[in-house]
Amino acid sequence: MDAIGTIRTPYKTKQDCPIQPVYTAGSSGRVEVLEQYAEGLKDIETFSHIYLLYQFDRADAISMVRSTFLDDTPHGIYASRHPCRPNGIGMSIVKLIRRVGNVLIVEGADMLDETPLLDIKPYIPKYDSIPAASEGWTAKMQWHQKPKGRE
Amino acid sequence: MDAIGTIRTPYKTKQDCPIQPVYTAGSSGRVEVLEQYAEGLKDIETFSHIYLLYQFDRADAISMVRSTFLDDTPHGIYASRHPCRPNGIGMSIVKLIRRVGNVLIVEGADMLDETPLLDIKPYIPKYDSIPAASEGWTAKMQWHQKPKGRE
Repeated sequence: MDAIGTIRTPYKTKQDCPIQPVYTAGSSGRVEVLEQYAEGLKDIETFSHIYLLYQFDRADAISMVRSTFLDDTPHGIYASRHPCRPNGIGMSIVKLIRRVGNVLIVEGADMLDETPLLDIKPYIPKYDSIPAASEGWTAKMQWHQKPKGRE
Repeated sequence: MDAIGTIRTPYKTKQDCPIQPVYTAGSSGRVEVLEQYAEGLKDIETFSHIYLLYQFDRADAISMVRSTFLDDTPHGIYASRHPCRPNGIGMSIVKLIRRVGNVLIVEGADMLDETPLLDIKPYIPKYDSIPAASEGWTAKMQWHQKPKGRE
């Protein structure tokens, strides 16, 4: 797989990164799509939210069971969003503020600066919004306040 | 990237496949995770819904702007979920019925039988459910009834 672009964020180190994009509303990111793929952005501005799929290119060694940023109990990597996973694909939902040519200005980007972008998909609430889904093991965790844009 | 398993569904040809997983509630799929990754499934059964990321391994040639299954108007590939896309990563949300060792029984799998699995992520409504997100260009489309499990 080859990057189709680059995600620019204010986060230069892992310590800077927020745990999940819902905590980052207000901070902006730039999704810079390579010119040869820019045509594929047609009509993306009709969506308020998009999925970004990207490569965790600076992740540490993979471990299949590990504790997460939320608690000290080890969980399976497939029951978590931890970056150190086979294939290293990251996924974040961000709010699309506007498109300027081949660049998307987004809110809620939680990945490292210069992260390689693999794909963009529209967030379509009829498919993707499942308020009644269970929170799983994360239900016991303390959560930050739900930010603007996720009401 | 290497497959971490295989997704088994009733759909042997593209013509058999439903357009989106929300239309397939009731049909079951099996997500067969390779033994060496099975440990990573620990605690996945605490979630009611999961994301499957997979390879569109039988997609046709990529085109950056094309009409979709929903209408005849051409849209950018990044404003659609069409399989013929750079990097060919598919994403579906399925309902997790149960786990049997390294196999997940799921409802709502919409991909071709024997699709290579790349990743599994838990669906966490606090991150992932955004009922107020816009439907974008799909808002004008005729939709099928919302099935069980998406209320």
